[in-house]
Amino acid sequence: MSGTEIDKLINEISKLPGLGRKSAQRIALYLLKNKERSLFPLMQIMKEANHKIVNCEICGNIDMISPCSICQNPKRDQQMICVIEDMPDLWAFERIGFYRGMYHIIGGTLSAINGTGVDELSISKLTKRVENKNVKEVILALSTTIEGQTTSHVIADKLEPLDIKVTRLAQGIPIGGEVHYLDENTLSTAFQSRKKIN
Amino acid sequence: MSGTEIDKLINEISKLPGLGRKSAQRIALYLLKNKERSLFPLMQIMKEANHKIVNCEICGNIDMISPCSICQNPKRDQQMICVIEDMPDLWAFERIGFYRGMYHIIGGTLSAINGTGVDELSISKLTKRVENKNVKEVILALSTTIEGQTTSHVIADKLEPLDIKVTRLAQGIPIGGEVHYLDENTLSTAFQSRKKIN
Repeated sequence: MSGTEIDKLINEISKLPGLGRKSAQRIALYLLKNKERSLFPLMQIMKEANHKIVNCEICGNIDMISPCSICQNPKRDQQMICVIEDMPDLWAFERIGFYRGMYHIIGGTLSAINGTGVDELSISKLTKRVENKNVKEVILALSTTIEGQTTSHVIADKLEPLDIKVTRLAQGIPIGGEVHYLDENTLSTAFQSRKKIN
Repeated sequence: MSGTEIDKLINEISKLPGLGRKSAQRIALYLLKNKERSLFPLMQIMKEANHKIVNCEICGNIDMISPCSICQNPKRDQQMICVIEDMPDLWAFERIGFYRGMYHIIGGTLSAINGTGVDELSISKLTKRVENKNVKEVILALSTTIEGQTTSHVIADKLEPLDIKVTRLAQGIPIGGEVHYLDENTLSTAFQSRKKIN
């Protein structure tokens, strides 16, 4: 409207996930008004990120080296693989820091709607990895949506012949959760999986 | 966590207005996974925007030329100035397209909390502009918040000695609005400003 470059900038920003036209306008104006503080540092880090960030050939983590710093870390347990959907899951585990094994990012969940089949996910790579390395346990840490649970079942089926321990995260009331706020699936799952108090 | 460049990228993105850490993570991953489709075009347009976009020396519009394409347009009414807070207001007027006069962006509203005084806004520039040009009407199209209304009053006071027509946007029920959803200020303003039906 007031200049094609501004429109183009707003347009590109509005394509980013979670951003609408209004937020894109606001961000574009902020960038143009704060060149030193925002536009230049962002341009610089985008350039560097483009050159330096790579996908780990083993687990799919994004890092500066491949194999990534987790796969290369001799202090981490090579015999344990935690299967996750995407990077934010890895960050969540690493932020808390209790887990000292390996990861395997499959890149999403099976979804008929999005056209994500078994071949779109990094599942055969996982089974090969488990076959070739001395892996003892695979932990499925996928979403507990229908798609996530289906994906977990498919992966568990594929791993079955390999005769290793396959586990999934416990399901139940979140810590700090209130019973009357739980949806019925969570409540009935938590009830059915109730545990004896010592 | 998994690489300083990724952290830096997420960090820079999370500084943009309206974005938290989670949205920044999502956008950073999207950029890195869609380099051809998103990262590269965005880097390119940020570079171009930085070089090509300038502030109009007359009205404060951001454009590729200064004076901007609106100020330079001989078909637009030079005797009418619409005073607005910022660019999105100009875009809103231009999108609808009924207004054919000039603009003046003051850059916000007076705000004790944000430390925005009369000198931080482009108000004396406006009065000079009105003095020097043959302006007939100044339309104050600022927010109807307390800050916006205060700012309108201050500008109207400053324009008073110049003996020109100073107007503000009508206040009342938005078109399509339902009476029982109106806040009390809008309803009482609309009531007090009621008009006779012909």
